[in-house]
This record gives sequence, structure tokens and C-alpha cells, in this order.
Amino acid sequence: MDGGTERETYRYQEVERHIMDMADAGAIGLGDRLPSLRTLSGNLGVSISTVNQAYMELERKGIIESRPRSGFFMRQPSARLPRTQSAPSHMDAPRPVTRSGLIQTVLESVGRADAAPLGVVAPGAHLLPIKELARITAAVVRDDPVRAMSYAPIPGDAELIRQIAFRSMEHGIPVTPDDPIITAGCMEALYLALRSVCRAGDTVLIQSPTYYCFLQLLETLGLRAAEIPSDPEGGVDPAELARALRTYDITACVLAPNYNNPDSSLTSDSAKREIVALLAGRDIPLVEDDVSTDLHFTQNRPGTFKQFDRKGLILLCSSFSKTIAPGYRVGWMLPGRFRQKVLEIKATTNVSTSAPAQMAIAEYLRQGRMERHLKRLRGALERQMDTMQLHLGRHFPAGTRVTHPTGGGVLWLQLPGDVDSVELFFQARERSIGIAPGAIFSTGDTFANYVRLSCGSPWTDELSDGVRILGEMATRMMESNGSQPRPTSLR
Amino acid sequence: MDGGTERETYRYQEVERHIMDMADAGAIGLGDRLPSLRTLSGNLGVSISTVNQAYMELERKGIIESRPRSGFFMRQPSARLPRTQSAPSHMDAPRPVTRSGLIQTVLESVGRADAAPLGVVAPGAHLLPIKELARITAAVVRDDPVRAMSYAPIPGDAELIRQIAFRSMEHGIPVTPDDPIITAGCMEALYLALRSVCRAGDTVLIQSPTYYCFLQLLETLGLRAAEIPSDPEGGVDPAELARALRTYDITACVLAPNYNNPDSSLTSDSAKREIVALLAGRDIPLVEDDVSTDLHFTQNRPGTFKQFDRKGLILLCSSFSKTIAPGYRVGWMLPGRFRQKVLEIKATTNVSTSAPAQMAIAEYLRQGRMERHLKRLRGALERQMDTMQLHLGRHFPAGTRVTHPTGGGVLWLQLPGDVDSVELFFQARERSIGIAPGAIFSTGDTFANYVRLSCGSPWTDELSDGVRILGEMATRMMESNGSQPRPTSLR
Repeated sequence: MDGGTERETYRYQEVERHIMDMADAGAIGLGDRLPSLRTLSGNLGVSISTVNQAYMELERKGIIESRPRSGFFMRQPSARLPRTQSAPSHMDAPRPVTRSGLIQTVLESVGRADAAPLGVVAPGAHLLPIKELARITAAVVRDDPVRAMSYAPIPGDAELIRQIAFRSMEHGIPVTPDDPIITAGCMEALYLALRSVCRAGDTVLIQSPTYYCFLQLLETLGLRAAEIPSDPEGGVDPAELARALRTYDITACVLAPNYNNPDSSLTSDSAKREIVALLAGRDIPLVEDDVSTDLHFTQNRPGTFKQFDRKGLILLCSSFSKTIAPGYRVGWMLPGRFRQKVLEIKATTNVSTSAPAQMAIAEYLRQGRMERHLKRLRGALERQMDTMQLHLGRHFPAGTRVTHPTGGGVLWLQLPGDVDSVELFFQARERSIGIAPGAIFSTGDTFANYVRLSCGSPWTDELSDGVRILGEMATRMMESNGSQPRPTSLR
Repeated sequence: MDGGTERETYRYQEVERHIMDMADAGAIGLGDRLPSLRTLSGNLGVSISTVNQAYMELERKGIIESRPRSGFFMRQPSARLPRTQSAPSHMDAPRPVTRSGLIQTVLESVGRADAAPLGVVAPGAHLLPIKELARITAAVVRDDPVRAMSYAPIPGDAELIRQIAFRSMEHGIPVTPDDPIITAGCMEALYLALRSVCRAGDTVLIQSPTYYCFLQLLETLGLRAAEIPSDPEGGVDPAELARALRTYDITACVLAPNYNNPDSSLTSDSAKREIVALLAGRDIPLVEDDVSTDLHFTQNRPGTFKQFDRKGLILLCSSFSKTIAPGYRVGWMLPGRFRQKVLEIKATTNVSTSAPAQMAIAEYLRQGRMERHLKRLRGALERQMDTMQLHLGRHFPAGTRVTHPTGGGVLWLQLPGDVDSVELFFQARERSIGIAPGAIFSTGDTFANYVRLSCGSPWTDELSDGVRILGEMATRMMESNGSQPRPTSLR
């Protein structure tokens, strides 16, 4: 695929999104005629064939239909749910984390084959470069079996470190080629980071909602959590962070500025800069979860906390688990001033990361395959998220809201207030539908009626059925809780 | 290679060892005539060709020579050093571990290419099933790339778990097929075990000397160490353990009963049974380092603590790093009653172990290749250890002693009292010779004049030179420390 074709792919998706946005905003309703190819082409400054491609895609999805000699018409109303509301600003005293029972139950579905795998955040196999990476893995192990079977150095395979340093520099992060430390996935990077900057009893500032594995990690390390709100539209507000720093004795922060799991919120680059400055003023380390940054649907990659780091206080944690190969367990850290401590803990955790997996990913990067793959992956995730949005709109009860992410791979569904998402989780599990209930994403009860849905799986009949069944379950739970079923144009 | 040939291989090695033992004991001296083939064959109950094979091997090593029509004669005196003395029984109050600076320096040589790699304990590439495993790895990844690239379940790849459970049962350990948990090497198993049974500030009972990574692990986890002596001849004495339990508030034990690294001591099975009973009486968990058990030079595999466990208190930790592929980072645990806690910590450390490495080793085991490989590996390690013993005897100063292990892959050298092994470590490093100084194997100063030498590398001219240079360094250090050079029949 050459560069030109790839750019075209992006353009037709932009046109598609433009139409969907108009429908969402009510500018085009059921049965309405869409602008002609020529008109839209002129309005948007794209070629007629690009608009045509977008219309054909919308027709394929059943959203519009073409009528001979008349043009294209909306076949469905906007089926998308309204946006999630921001959680009210709240600040509770830091508390120990005690979610592990429920989290463990959810985690046990990792590696389980659900008919509708909406619970686990990992791109489905169809989105991974399965064949290429299998071929490369076989080749590197056969070409240099001694390197594959010998201990990798503690910081990691030299070629992989070099490749990651190179990519980091391309992303505007000032690193030297020796900075990265290879870890067994982003989870291990976060674990190493927290063990390097905290000890049991310390208080760690997190955003709420936050990835449940962070909470479990805090719990197993005996750390206390202080939560500040994560807004689906704006991510972390520096003013809230400043307030928390004034109020509590914070030892470290863990924040995911780009497509935070589960609310997919994006903290702006200017807010990032402000936050880094606030923390630098107090010498407080910040563990940055960078795992979803590569999954931007926007033209430009968002920035990182790390790129504003001047004091070595940011420990950036990332991995290839959401882009290439979850099962390889290869991630990395840019550890800033905590390098020595991180290496010491890595050495006493598992010495070094599995060598064949490191070599395979190093070679994949060295061959320059990553950017092309990421383009395809982002496009596919965005399309799957679009499709999911439409189906959610059809099947979920009135009063349901959902995030409209600009990257990542998950949707954060806000159910009507009387639906308990933990109960929904257990009901869904009975039907082999995996979801992640909101309760596990916070130490408090703010998200009892939220659900996180992963959009990483291909759209199948099973998945379609799964979403329908989930919607019916939520509707029944709402009704049996005594709420009046409300008439809705969405169903 | 069929079974008969393999058994023959073992027999001639036994004859070789018999001769060397007689030489060590002074029963055969320089220039002495060895028993005739027929006589020794009759005495030992082996075939004449077996004795002949042993004599030819000894001749090849330059230890004996054949004279036409006269028979075989000792060409060298016993070049082996006398056995290491037991460390005096001692018991210091438990203390925090603070070895990490020096240990880190030593650990940095992991993955470094030394001319004489005597510091790192891992079988050299020539001892690993490099080609077979590379072929199998390539095949499993290409045959099932989706499984290789997807998250493995937290406890591990199902087939690998099954294979390990099966082997454990064969070794007399009562497990169910679901018991094993796969880890990123034995180090991670030990780390998971300690985090599951201790918290910062607790006191852990260890043997002294002990593997330095345990000490570093204790230090990074904020644990205190109580040390009891490890005797090169008898391992851990249950009476010493009982005394420590009466004296200190011990939360858990970490012991390596089989070929303890570095003194290669073996704790007898009856002592194992006694120790398990002592700990069961007080409900104290025992973390068992099982990593070297497969490397027995004796006919029978030694037993484990785990096989006597009736209360689920033993957490057996092992791996394939010393037998198949250090760089794959695949180990396992039998976690006893601590399973749930271990899984929780594994999930928050790195979710699960690298899938392609697990699949490759599972397939290697499934194809039944392990036992044959282990036989070859044990034979090779024993031969290399023999060769090393001879060279040590030639080059090290009088007063040097060494262990005579019956398994494992390391020698534990006791230098004359005034030689500082840390200084020797730094001098050796200058010449690209890697060794492990005794000081890092204990929290105290008992082993300041000890050195651990790995016998996992093939015997090359570089290695031979390395041992000679080391011996010369030690001699010079002894002399410059003011000791009189003593005349010795060994040089």
C-alpha cells in the first residue's frame, strides 16, 4: 500500500464521520436526503470519489441507502447514544484499596474464550500482525538461537532498546539511546515504577475512573489511593490536581493522559505541561500510562507528560500489548532519574524479559512495519467503535449515555442510575458475554451504573447478539427496579 | 542414542570418579600403577570395556598414561583441592539486607560476554538444546500464531501446566493437574512466593551461604534475614533450624535443599522430612528453591520438601533456566495454599508469562525430549566440573579448598584466609574473567575469602587461561598480603 492510498483511506473516514456527526446533531434525520456527491465534495474539499467511498461504506453499514436517480437517504435515525456526563467534582480522603475480590473475578476472564469478548481490552487477533510477526519470530529464533536462549541483559535486548529510543525521539521525547528499560508488558512497567517510588502506606494520586489493574496493584503493594475526577471530555484538570496536592500528602501520581482506560479521556497537551510543572515544583514523581497513545484516531499523535519532563520525575510506561502482540508480554519504561532502582527491582523480579519475544518485536520495528500497521489498526478500531455505537443506540434503554472517544479502544457506558453494573456483569457472564463493570474502576461507588465495553473484537453475529442481549438485560433490570419504561425514539 | 548406550556412559563415569576418589584419598600417588582392566572390572562389577573407556578418558585428560606392556600409571598427583571446610556454626541476630550495591555490580555482568564466563550460572549454549528448541519455537508460533500473540491465562499456558504437573507427579510430588502456576523464571516464582507470605519488616530464615539474588530480593522487599549455616557436606541441619525457630520470630523460610547455590550442598531427604514437620508444627511457610534438582550426578533424583508437604505450606519454585533456555524466562511454582494470593500478585506484576516461550517449552516436553536432554546435560556438567577441579588444583595456592558437588553446576572455592574475593572479583573483571565473590552470598562476612565458579561453559583455551590467571592473582594477593609463599606439591 503506498502513501497516497493510505491518505485516501483517512479522507473517506473523515467524510463518514462528518455525516455521522451531522446525524448526531440532528441536522439530518430519518428519511432525509444527503447532500449530492458533488456538493459535499465541494463543501469538504475532497474528491468526488472520496465522498462516494464514504457513502458506500455508510450504505454497507445499513445507515444510508441509495435510491435510483434520487441520491442517498438516511435509513436510520442517529442511533448513537448521547455523551456521558462528567462525574461531579468530588474528592474523598485517600483510602486503602479493597477491590481485589471483584477485580480478581473479572481478571479471571483474561484468556477465557467468551462468545462476546467485550470485557478484555486487547485488539482481536484480526487486528494484530499475526502472520508477519509469526514469520519474523520464527526467523529470528532460527537465525540466532543462542541469543534467543541466553539471558537478555537486565535492561533488555540492545536492538529493541535502540528501536524504542528512536521512536520516542520521533515522538518528541528527549531520550538517549540507553534510556529505555524493557519490561514484561506495561503492567510490569507500572509495577516497577510504583515499587521504585513508593513504599507501603504511601498515598498515590490517581484519576477516577482508572484502569482497575492500577487499583489492584495499589492494593497488593499496600498503597492508599487519592482520587481526582477524570472527565470524559477533558481528562485530568490541573486545578483539581493542584487542590489534591495541597490537601493530601501525595507520594506519587499515576495518570493516563491519553485515552484513559475506561473513559478514553484525553488530557490536553497544555494541561499536561501544567501538571508536569506542578509536580516538578514539589519533586513528586509521576507514573505515566502511555499504553494507548498510539491508538489516536486524530491525524496527530497526542503529546506525553514525559516530553515536558526536565527533572527526570516522569516514569513513562508503555507496551506493544495493545498494538502488536499482547501475549508476547513486551513493554518498556523511560524511567527518568529512577533508572538504578528500577533495574534493581527488575533483576529481583524476573532478571530480564523473555528474549525471543524481545528479538521478534525489535526485528518487526527494525523492518519499519510499525507505522503502516498502526494506521490500519487505528482505522479498524475506529470503525468497530462506530459500529458498536450504532448497536448500543438500538438496544440500550433510554437514559443510557456513552463516551465518544477520539482514540483508544473502549467505550464507557453510563446506564440509567438504577442499573447495577456488577449484577449486569454476572448476568452477562452466564450468557458468555464478557464486560467490565464500572465498580472496579474506582475505590468508591461513583461508577456503580457504568460499564466498559471493549471494541477490539471483529463485528460478528455473536457480538451483535451479545450487545442486544446486554441491552435487554439492562432494560429488564431498569424495569424490575421499578422504573417506568420510558418511550424512546432510539428503540 | 538408545537407553543401553546411555547407561554405559554413566558407568564409565562412575569408574572415572572411583579412580579420582582413590587419588584424592592418597591411595594412588604420582607414578603409581593403576589396577589392571581385568582386576578393576572384577572389583567394580563392570565390563572390561567400561574400565577401558574410563582409562582412555583419564588419559585424554592427561591424568594417567599408558606404558606399552606395563599398564596405566598416574601421570599427575591428585590435582584436586581438598574439600571446603564447614563454616563454623554461627547464628547472628536477624538483620536487614544491604548487599545491593555489590550484588548489582556483579549482576550487571548478566548478559555480558566475558572471555572466561565463570560468574554467571547458566549452562553454556553448547549444553542447551539450541537447535531442537529453535525449530520447535518456530513451529509452534507458525502453527498457532493467535495463541502465541494472545494473552496466556494468568496461571499459564494450559498444556505447559499439564506437562509440569505430570513431571511433578513422576517425581513423587502429590499435585493435581491444575496446581502449577507458570512464572517468568525461578526468580519470579521466588518473588511471588515471598510477596505472598511476607510483608516488609518480617524476618525470613535463609541458609548461609545463599544465592545472592535471594538477598537482593529480601532487600528490595524490606525483609530481614536470619541465617543458619549451610554445610557443603550436609546442607541444612534440622537442629540448627529448630534452634533458629525457637530464638527468632520467623515469618517464612527460603531454602535450597538440592545443590544450593553456591555451596552445592545437598540436604538429605530425611532432613527434609524433619524440616517440613518442624515448620508444619508452627504453620510457617517454606519457599523451596528447586531450580538445580534436575542436575543430579547421582543415579537418583533427590527428593523435595514439597513431597512431604501435607499442609500446603511449601511453595516450590523452579524453572527451565538451568536446563533448557535461560533467556525464555519460563519457570513455575507449586504454590500450595497460597495459590489465590500468588495469582493476584502475578496479575498485577505482568498479567501472565510470555506465550510463545511457554508454548515452545510445552511442546518440547510433550515430545518427550526432556529426560534424554537432562542425561546429556548432567554428564557434560559433571565432566566440566571434573576438568575445572583439575585445573584449580594446578593453579591455586596451597591452602585453597573446594567443594566436591554431586550435582548442580558450580564450585565453591575457599581461598586462603587473607585473600579478599571482592578484590579478586574486580581484578578478574579487568581481564574479562567473570567470577562471583563470596561476600555477596551472605549478609555477614563469613565468606569474604570464598569465590563461586560456574562450570556451565565449554572448556576452552580462554577458560583454561582464565583459571590460570585467577590462580596467579590469588597467589599474588596472598603473597602481597604478607603471607609466606608456601611450597606445595600441587604446583
